[in-house]
Amino acid sequence: MAKVKLDITMSLDGFVAGPDRTIEQPLGERGDLLHEWVYGLASWRAPHGLEGGETNVDSEVLDESMANNGAVVMGRRMFSGGHGAWEVDPRAHGWWGDDPPFGVPVFVLTHHARQPLAMKGGTTFTFVTDGVEAAVEQARAAAGDRDVNIGGGASVAQQALAAGLLDELQVHVAPVLLGGGVRLFEGLDAGQVALEQARVVEGQNVAHLTYRPAAG
Amino acid sequence: MAKVKLDITMSLDGFVAGPDRTIEQPLGERGDLLHEWVYGLASWRAPHGLEGGETNVDSEVLDESMANNGAVVMGRRMFSGGHGAWEVDPRAHGWWGDDPPFGVPVFVLTHHARQPLAMKGGTTFTFVTDGVEAAVEQARAAAGDRDVNIGGGASVAQQALAAGLLDELQVHVAPVLLGGGVRLFEGLDAGQVALEQARVVEGQNVAHLTYRPAAG
Repeated sequence: MAKVKLDITMSLDGFVAGPDRTIEQPLGERGDLLHEWVYGLASWRAPHGLEGGETNVDSEVLDESMANNGAVVMGRRMFSGGHGAWEVDPRAHGWWGDDPPFGVPVFVLTHHARQPLAMKGGTTFTFVTDGVEAAVEQARAAAGDRDVNIGGGASVAQQALAAGLLDELQVHVAPVLLGGGVRLFEGLDAGQVALEQARVVEGQNVAHLTYRPAAG
Repeated sequence: MAKVKLDITMSLDGFVAGPDRTIEQPLGERGDLLHEWVYGLASWRAPHGLEGGETNVDSEVLDESMANNGAVVMGRRMFSGGHGAWEVDPRAHGWWGDDPPFGVPVFVLTHHARQPLAMKGGTTFTFVTDGVEAAVEQARAAAGDRDVNIGGGASVAQQALAAGLLDELQVHVAPVLLGGGVRLFEGLDAGQVALEQARVVEGQNVAHLTYRPAAG
């Protein structure tokens, strides 16, 4: 049974990006620290065209998360790497390069209609302007019996959570305090989402927490 | 070597109390859900004068945390259970009863000087008006070679963290989204506190995350 999953890294103080985001620093100040757990892993390096890397409990968690991945949903900012004027910017798909690491259909939630982009390696970017439910629906159809991964950022994650679209929520908690930036959980009504803890895994320098959301 | 430890339960979205705190509901709306992991444990029930309860991985974590406890530091609100006018309120120590579950010296950080209170069972409440560093210093002296536990709430925790007073930070992450209330981490400068992940334990319906803060 295909699942809709959110898989995202958060600082211990709740941020998925640090303060003062710029084009040069799309994850904000110290935001790169969030993903330190992943850069050295073979499972991350291979789809990014890099050789080598470690195989350990963290790469197992990452492999598992990607194993059945059939489609991705992401926000416009995650697509364009913080470029505001991405519709006309030649770097509009420069953030992910010509050969993005997804290898599956990617649905980008945006306010601006745009023709689909077919990239190398099986990644296609399709732009969805009628909301998160429509994006997830299209992604489900594209994924068939495989899973849909909500890639982020925070706004898409919050919309999916609030709309009750998630079957699984995996939060990788990084041992970092960013002190400001973009919160993963913001603007949810109290009691809107009930969670069940499914699994806790001790990574090398990260905690992998998995939950199943249920109607509150 | 005596350690200064913060041990606190936080919702996945970062709150240690829910919205709309009242005297009747000092942990705010749905705030009681935070501590569900603890109420059924023998290790929690015994010092609260209750019989029975479970022994499991969560009680081990709790036992370990309390095992070497020599003194407690807490905020005024945690002392009085949300009573604003506690200085003259006969319920001022009613929140914890005549026989509080600590059994060690407790230092209450407050703006209002007050005579110490000696309670049953070895608990004494001493009121400290000159800041968190002074409270921790007094608690260290009282604890001798045992540990000092910062009990909360969030404000005391933030002050201790920002002042670099903690040797260990244990956050019990409850599978709850409160959507609002009192954040554990608030008002920290980015980069102010660097953390090292020390341990991750999968509890029955909670994740026990332990960190060692270091100067940022």
